[in-house]
Amino acid sequence: MRVINFNPGPAGLPLPALERARDELIDFQGSGMSVMEHSHRGKEYEAVHDETISLLTELLGIPDTHQVLFLTGGASQQFAQVPMNFLHPGTSADYLMTGVWSEKAYDEARIVGQARIAATTVGPDKRYVRVPGQGELQLDPRAAYVHLTSNNTLYGTQWHTWPEVGSVPLIADMSSDFMWKPTDVSRFAFLYAGAQKNLGPSGVLIAVARKDFIAQGRRDIPKIFRYSLHAENNSLYNTPPTLAIYLCRNVLAWMKEQGGLAGMEARNRQKGELLYRSLDANAGFYRAPVERESRSFMNVVFHLPTPELDATFVAEAKKAGMVGLKGHRISGGIRASLYNAVSVDDVRALVSFLEEFARKKG
Amino acid sequence: MRVINFNPGPAGLPLPALERARDELIDFQGSGMSVMEHSHRGKEYEAVHDETISLLTELLGIPDTHQVLFLTGGASQQFAQVPMNFLHPGTSADYLMTGVWSEKAYDEARIVGQARIAATTVGPDKRYVRVPGQGELQLDPRAAYVHLTSNNTLYGTQWHTWPEVGSVPLIADMSSDFMWKPTDVSRFAFLYAGAQKNLGPSGVLIAVARKDFIAQGRRDIPKIFRYSLHAENNSLYNTPPTLAIYLCRNVLAWMKEQGGLAGMEARNRQKGELLYRSLDANAGFYRAPVERESRSFMNVVFHLPTPELDATFVAEAKKAGMVGLKGHRISGGIRASLYNAVSVDDVRALVSFLEEFARKKG
Ligand SMILES: Cc1ncc(COP(=O)(O)O)c(C=O)c1O
Ligand SMILES: Cc1ncc(COP(=O)(O)O)c(C=O)c1O
Ligand SMILES: [Mg+2]
Ligand SMILES: [Mg+2]
Ligand SMILES: [Mg+2]
Ligand SMILES: [Mg+2]
Repeated sequence: MRVINFNPGPAGLPLPALERARDELIDFQGSGMSVMEHSHRGKEYEAVHDETISLLTELLGIPDTHQVLFLTGGASQQFAQVPMNFLHPGTSADYLMTGVWSEKAYDEARIVGQARIAATTVGPDKRYVRVPGQGELQLDPRAAYVHLTSNNTLYGTQWHTWPEVGSVPLIADMSSDFMWKPTDVSRFAFLYAGAQKNLGPSGVLIAVARKDFIAQGRRDIPKIFRYSLHAENNSLYNTPPTLAIYLCRNVLAWMKEQGGLAGMEARNRQKGELLYRSLDANAGFYRAPVERESRSFMNVVFHLPTPELDATFVAEAKKAGMVGLKGHRISGGIRASLYNAVSVDDVRALVSFLEEFARKKG
Repeated sequence: MRVINFNPGPAGLPLPALERARDELIDFQGSGMSVMEHSHRGKEYEAVHDETISLLTELLGIPDTHQVLFLTGGASQQFAQVPMNFLHPGTSADYLMTGVWSEKAYDEARIVGQARIAATTVGPDKRYVRVPGQGELQLDPRAAYVHLTSNNTLYGTQWHTWPEVGSVPLIADMSSDFMWKPTDVSRFAFLYAGAQKNLGPSGVLIAVARKDFIAQGRRDIPKIFRYSLHAENNSLYNTPPTLAIYLCRNVLAWMKEQGGLAGMEARNRQKGELLYRSLDANAGFYRAPVERESRSFMNVVFHLPTPELDATFVAEAKKAGMVGLKGHRISGGIRASLYNAVSVDDVRALVSFLEEFARKKG
């Protein structure tokens, strides 16, 4: 019996994508071997590689100006690799701070070169409960780039309107909300996301890069860190994580069947609305600290009246077949991650559980 | 029907390891989810992580002075990360050149800092048919480290005695022969290997690091590239490639059942001897260019009288159920990769085939 999985990442994946992987794990398409045993230079794997890129291109509507890259090391490696590529000597980058992931990105950038905080919503308690408004941004018009975290996995905030940054290249860590809805990727010079929330297993990172932007990246860094090199080699410069890419292919094919990103958005909005509505209706018992306009549809963060009740909630939810609800140790409380693979019915089950819990303990 | 897989990497894996993965792909140990859907901070995945480290430690006899790390980006990323960590300002590193992989490692090191060639066996035709002898090494006693490629996947050469490097730290890229036999890891300050030959799918790199050596690594590089950071966090600083590590666990468990590294060595020696003996016995038809003492037990490289016959050989072998035999485009000819998962019977089948082929076409 499969449980209902609210893990923050690695996260639940759609069952049909997993079943497809299971059914051909030993013998991929009659080739007599597993997809992971195929050479990354052979036609069988290359078809998977190219299909994954095609599905991403189709579902996201990626224009010709941009290119998909498969990279590794997670978003954490991109925190360093982005400034290594784009912080040319004498330049500085602007960071929009909305949580611990932006902080980590900023810290790596400052090791590589010059970076400044162009906006932050950090509170006196070091927490973040919203993303900044346009009026709060103090942008450097000569910045090498502006970096933001589109969804703050830990605090449960999300950008719902992209900031205006003029002609400065915009870069986004979209790890926890990539492909949750249709997105105009042409606004971004570079965006990146670890697969392990909305798209696949951990071990592969997907980037969408504007070709002319990465072509101007620094050439005095090791080859393997140059985005331009991976672009020129269709992400086959060295051995890519073939099995992880194959699993993303299966998930993308499922997304396409579910109506693509419009379908994902409809599901995801319904899920988020169901859960927030219930939390608001029980606001005497559950407290959702994030400001309304910054609420994340991917990670719904809330607290019960006491840490003890938080713990009881998590334990009883687990008995009821719902796992992954414990909040991050920094934020405490409860976090329900509602990535693409979580169904509306899964959220309905959580809502019934939490309403019943409030009745019993409230 | 599974084929006989002589791929150079990604390569064939032991069927029991794959079957185990298939059987629990949807529901890992009754947890109601796949191992790839588990949080990397949860107890289910952590048990897999720790078991993989324990199996490596047990099979290799890793001493307390050393530690296992799981990294990403393949050996190609280590070509850059090694000098980033260990090439302190004002120091230089020595590279032992035995093929294209050493060349790539050296090229990245020269982008990061100072590196010199302490030995090379490159021929006038730019090829390599042997590893250097001790007398050929021109070592810098003050070098930051000596780097070698233990097995040259492309040209089919292998180090059978480690060079004496005095008190200089020895670093090895063991991507294509890691764990092919018992190895005294205490000789190495740092060794690394992509999993995709002897150990698992692509997407995870295993390093064995001397703790005091990596602790002295540079601190002015991005955090994510510091080996010391990954060591301090038991390779859980950021999300590791959990599924790839799980699959390595399955392969390591199989290796243990097969008698550990002593068992692997016995199998691997028998396989290499069978194939080289047959090639030598048919030396009028097959030419194995590598010098006898440098022959690799992992990648057996040979040529037929003409490139056309090479192509016919590959095509007919495929019809006979044997794949992955085409040589690398740089070396041409045939390459049979005999990694741990290839059985003695697989090699017997290849030997029968090649003897029959020589009789027919010779
Ligand atoms: C928004 C965001 N950025 C970055 C990361 C770090 O990703 P990784 O662990 O793959 O490096 C995470 C991980 O949860 C995240 O949620
Ligand atoms: C000896 C050796 N080193 C390094 C590499 C590069 O490994 P990766 O493609 O995983 O970066 C290979 C790949 O075949 C190899 O055989
Ligand atoms: Mg997280
Ligand atoms: Mg954040
Ligand atoms: Mg190779
Ligand atoms: Mg080499």
